[in-house]
Amino acid sequence: MTSVAVIGASGYIGSELLRLLVNHPEIDEITPVSRSLAGKKVSSHLTHLRGFLDAEFQDMDLGNLDADFLYVAAPPGEWIRFIPSVLERGIKVVSMGGKFRIKNPEIDSKIYPGFDNRELLEKAVYGLPELYRREIKKAGFVANPGCYTTSVILAMAPLSRYKESLDLEKIVVSSVSGSSGAGAKPSRFLHHPEMSSNLRPYRVLEHRHTPEMEHILSREFNSDLSISFTPSIGNHSRGILSYINLFSSHEIDLGELFIDFYGEEFFVRILSSAEENVPNLKDVVNTNFCDIGTNFRRERGRILLLSATDNLIKGGSGTAVQNMNLMLGLDEGLGLRQIAVSP
Amino acid sequence: MTSVAVIGASGYIGSELLRLLVNHPEIDEITPVSRSLAGKKVSSHLTHLRGFLDAEFQDMDLGNLDADFLYVAAPPGEWIRFIPSVLERGIKVVSMGGKFRIKNPEIDSKIYPGFDNRELLEKAVYGLPELYRREIKKAGFVANPGCYTTSVILAMAPLSRYKESLDLEKIVVSSVSGSSGAGAKPSRFLHHPEMSSNLRPYRVLEHRHTPEMEHILSREFNSDLSISFTPSIGNHSRGILSYINLFSSHEIDLGELFIDFYGEEFFVRILSSAEENVPNLKDVVNTNFCDIGTNFRRERGRILLLSATDNLIKGGSGTAVQNMNLMLGLDEGLGLRQIAVSP
Amino acid sequence: MTSVAVIGASGYIGSELLRLLVNHPEIDEITPVSRSLAGKKVSSHLTHLRGFLDAEFQDMDLGNLDADFLYVAAPPGEWIRFIPSVLERGIKVVSMGGKFRIKNPEIDSKIYPGFDNRELLEKAVYGLPELYRREIKKAGFVANPGCYTTSVILAMAPLSRYKESLDLEKIVVSSVSGSSGAGAKPSRFLHHPEMSSNLRPYRVLEHRHTPEMEHILSREFNSDLSISFTPSIGNHSRGILSYINLFSSHEIDLGELFIDFYGEEFFVRILSSAEENVPNLKDVVNTNFCDIGTNFRRERGRILLLSATDNLIKGGSGTAVQNMNLMLGLDEGLGLRQIAVSP
Amino acid sequence: MTSVAVIGASGYIGSELLRLLVNHPEIDEITPVSRSLAGKKVSSHLTHLRGFLDAEFQDMDLGNLDADFLYVAAPPGEWIRFIPSVLERGIKVVSMGGKFRIKNPEIDSKIYPGFDNRELLEKAVYGLPELYRREIKKAGFVANPGCYTTSVILAMAPLSRYKESLDLEKIVVSSVSGSSGAGAKPSRFLHHPEMSSNLRPYRVLEHRHTPEMEHILSREFNSDLSISFTPSIGNHSRGILSYINLFSSHEIDLGELFIDFYGEEFFVRILSSAEENVPNLKDVVNTNFCDIGTNFRRERGRILLLSATDNLIKGGSGTAVQNMNLMLGLDEGLGLRQIAVSP
Repeated sequence: MTSVAVIGASGYIGSELLRLLVNHPEIDEITPVSRSLAGKKVSSHLTHLRGFLDAEFQDMDLGNLDADFLYVAAPPGEWIRFIPSVLERGIKVVSMGGKFRIKNPEIDSKIYPGFDNRELLEKAVYGLPELYRREIKKAGFVANPGCYTTSVILAMAPLSRYKESLDLEKIVVSSVSGSSGAGAKPSRFLHHPEMSSNLRPYRVLEHRHTPEMEHILSREFNSDLSISFTPSIGNHSRGILSYINLFSSHEIDLGELFIDFYGEEFFVRILSSAEENVPNLKDVVNTNFCDIGTNFRRERGRILLLSATDNLIKGGSGTAVQNMNLMLGLDEGLGLRQIAVSP
Repeated sequence: MTSVAVIGASGYIGSELLRLLVNHPEIDEITPVSRSLAGKKVSSHLTHLRGFLDAEFQDMDLGNLDADFLYVAAPPGEWIRFIPSVLERGIKVVSMGGKFRIKNPEIDSKIYPGFDNRELLEKAVYGLPELYRREIKKAGFVANPGCYTTSVILAMAPLSRYKESLDLEKIVVSSVSGSSGAGAKPSRFLHHPEMSSNLRPYRVLEHRHTPEMEHILSREFNSDLSISFTPSIGNHSRGILSYINLFSSHEIDLGELFIDFYGEEFFVRILSSAEENVPNLKDVVNTNFCDIGTNFRRERGRILLLSATDNLIKGGSGTAVQNMNLMLGLDEGLGLRQIAVSP
Repeated sequence: MTSVAVIGASGYIGSELLRLLVNHPEIDEITPVSRSLAGKKVSSHLTHLRGFLDAEFQDMDLGNLDADFLYVAAPPGEWIRFIPSVLERGIKVVSMGGKFRIKNPEIDSKIYPGFDNRELLEKAVYGLPELYRREIKKAGFVANPGCYTTSVILAMAPLSRYKESLDLEKIVVSSVSGSSGAGAKPSRFLHHPEMSSNLRPYRVLEHRHTPEMEHILSREFNSDLSISFTPSIGNHSRGILSYINLFSSHEIDLGELFIDFYGEEFFVRILSSAEENVPNLKDVVNTNFCDIGTNFRRERGRILLLSATDNLIKGGSGTAVQNMNLMLGLDEGLGLRQIAVSP
Repeated sequence: MTSVAVIGASGYIGSELLRLLVNHPEIDEITPVSRSLAGKKVSSHLTHLRGFLDAEFQDMDLGNLDADFLYVAAPPGEWIRFIPSVLERGIKVVSMGGKFRIKNPEIDSKIYPGFDNRELLEKAVYGLPELYRREIKKAGFVANPGCYTTSVILAMAPLSRYKESLDLEKIVVSSVSGSSGAGAKPSRFLHHPEMSSNLRPYRVLEHRHTPEMEHILSREFNSDLSISFTPSIGNHSRGILSYINLFSSHEIDLGELFIDFYGEEFFVRILSSAEENVPNLKDVVNTNFCDIGTNFRRERGRILLLSATDNLIKGGSGTAVQNMNLMLGLDEGLGLRQIAVSP
């Protein structure tokens, strides 16, 4: 059995980690860490965990960390200085934030400034199991992917086999996320009267997930590529739907390609209707699935991929648990096989 | 033509006043006052007013107020000290907040503590035009009713004619308001991920509108009465629906009663189907209407009144404009005859 | 291991049964029955079950039913004629509809006309495990409670101990349900443009769950009682919140009472803050919990109970699985311990 | 004063026409036509019009039409045969449907099959006032634009001046509409439990508005162009937000271009912040405005236009009234200057 600590346990990514870990059959001890809520019962703040997690938030000193596994769901900060010694002590770590995802020190430092650590960046494995399972299994330090990024990379990765046909400079992606993806901190932007019945694009020219997508995908494609990415928040709490548009000079049998590419994967479901392939966002909410619909309009060489995930699960904490399972040598899907809440 | 100043113009009640005044044919000058946003263009904060109101927010000194009419949409504060001299200068005033609504100094002072002013309280006329039109026409200082209160008082007032039949100690009211009714200030309670697809009761034992309802209605009924009131915020931005339950020892022809009572009123619409009378919230959003459905179950002596309003219009700024129209001797419905946005 | 058939598997109650059964560790065979969709793959209609249930809908002849357990989620119909022989063959049955819930032949026949069967009505056990566990364990035929009913009965049952203090003729209940509670059949009432940002009372004078509540509760209270019940559909898909108002002539320590009454129950959680006790609807969505907040205003003798459930789970299919577990001698909570999806 | 008949008055486009016409100062008689609801009071079906329109729906014979102006909000049908004689009698007509929008008989006939009429197609003027005001003023028969189309064409039209810089084969448009855009007919797709908290793409490869956009814009650009268009329904009732992506080989000062192009237009508002230009959907709901935000990312030659309208007003009935005003020689904005309902 295994003990786990979660730093930043009061945010949405952190609390979703708690929820998944509580139900995880191999985890027997969870230490929820939150400086601001230290001493408070978890279930008084995260009331949906009442009866499932009766611990208090702690204000842990990472120097004294006593756990087998560590999740960090916090912005770049002092915690980074402690990670090397944590790893030395044999504690494996998944970092949920953006830092260390992009293995280019200049970009990493520019997008997530402060607390740079080249060695750690060197060590970090990008935690997308469907693509990097082998590396993750051996990793001590994993950088968990971004929510938008996950939905886009999983959908685009199979296309690397046809990169010569594609216009890699004109990839257009629009993603709509549930509001929980923008975090637990109240703001005018997410104030219910303003956000209710609304649809709000933001950071439309430079979202931090754009370089992450481009970095990982250019590795997969072994080629530069440029993504025009527009994120929005929609009038729902959970779920990302990504619209991914590409242009191909040749016909591609997308259905065959995707089913072949993901044949073995439990958490990636490829839609395969004869006509339109449109995933239903409700089919992935509360799950670790990524549902992908592939559509091709021959006479225009137009590809439309539609990719749906739960932004907090497959787009965050679910993938993180999947990574932990791999890093600890457990069954990869342990604790992650929930069915969607639909309707 | 008339000039108007609005103190507290950046909140939801204030901004809705601006919106209604911009379209009001007799108002030719609007001074939006907001200390925190002074110097900023109104339309940069309230972007829906772009092209309609190009003024800047001002930080007005009430001592130098230069306007024909004043709205105050602010909590009890220093402004109260200035009102007597403002009134002396012949400027009429509508106060949007709770203070001065209850003409009982002890209650007023207990519920809205600080800045008490007995003379002003004495002068204040409760601004519900359908009931107190005559007094409002002559008033210099009007206390505008609360949002929940408006929907409940308008529905209950006709029953005063049958007070002997009613159990006045066991009146049960549940009201669900759009989230805009809880104000423009971001909070965890109204954070979109938390409030979306939710329904949230609050202040379930002692909301400040309860004594207001009871005070006004006991005046109307000429009898004490006790209301068990539970407010909630629903998953929409606009609109209050109030469920008002009473018990009657005798049969009452509610349809006839209500149509007789409100026969002349433009802004109160009585539903009159043979069977169920359920107003549609969408029929009042964006309007100054109060739609009332009356239902009676004979064998149980059960009365169910359903009352629907837009919480920011008939429940606030619309009624305030109606009051201004009366106080200035204008056509009462001027600027207020919008039709609902449905669906 | 056990095989189960679900009649009416394409509706919301039926499909939620499938979802829960798929994850149930003791069920190894599920037969989804739907006349209208017979021959179609379940997962082509209920796409969220893709990968979990690959069966086809069948058009089963109950005379040839080959299963250990039967759920019927269908309106009164021909199926009723077959139940006696099904029971004789030792197959236990849970009926999800309203018929057979009220053990009074006149009421049963009036509210759910047609296909009356006195013997079956005699046999039927009302399937609310927290109150009738003992009877359910021995039952062959269980009538599963209504969704509104469940949330109201669970909240009111403990008050039976104080029935002398209560005005049992003036109980006022208002319940707001997620739209899935109104069923899978499209209608103007539930058309998204009409229902979005709306709140819609319906059957405000005579909903069929009212006699059900009154029947069961008067048994519990051993006394007649009269409930003024108003149901509404709110702008969310899942979850019922019931507001239950009573008047007491004496002070009652509700917290103590409810914790004592439900001390042992896993699926009923009593809130126990010092002040307001308001359950959060999001804490029960996707769960089999009923969260109850008790509030008492001394000087008025006012009781306000707030009761939250997921209308399709604790309000339907979850309780049905709980009943099956009891009827089959299994651990009562098997397959039902999911945590809420929050936010 | 003018009398108007509206065929198809019970749908969303038709009822929104009624609402706008009721408040139109130059219209004194409205004849609402609906075969299915003939004889029923308009306000019993469209309850938000209670007190504003007391007429009954009629089942009109177009041969006997007695009105100055005719709107047809109906699919291609028998009514088309009557239009020539209606026009001959001097009655001007706006057709709200898709037929006659594309002045290419083959495309028109393919997309909107049946009831072809070449002469009428010849006569038809495309009713987008901001682009074709001159032609509309002289027209007897106007084909009102589609909802998605309006938001896209208005945003793209100014770019025609820079067509040499643009890749006209790789234009990617994603539009999210309020559910009212999909019509008043109940369906599983728009059933509230399914659509609530969801986001649903549909007809992702071939929506009928795509050829309409391409036809009109290639006229404006005087060049072929190809639009990859994906429509979706969002979790709100009203409002379209279109994301329009283009690639430019040269830098373009979009702010200057758009302000210059639309300088005189009241109903098109160009956002002009220094950085991100993101319109707020709530600023256009209930209005005839189209708000456009232009964004350019220099180093990538990426253009992102964001265009927001109310799908039933500027995207339908509002533009239709604007057209009527022009055709009748009235002030173009008459009856159309409402401010948005925000928040």
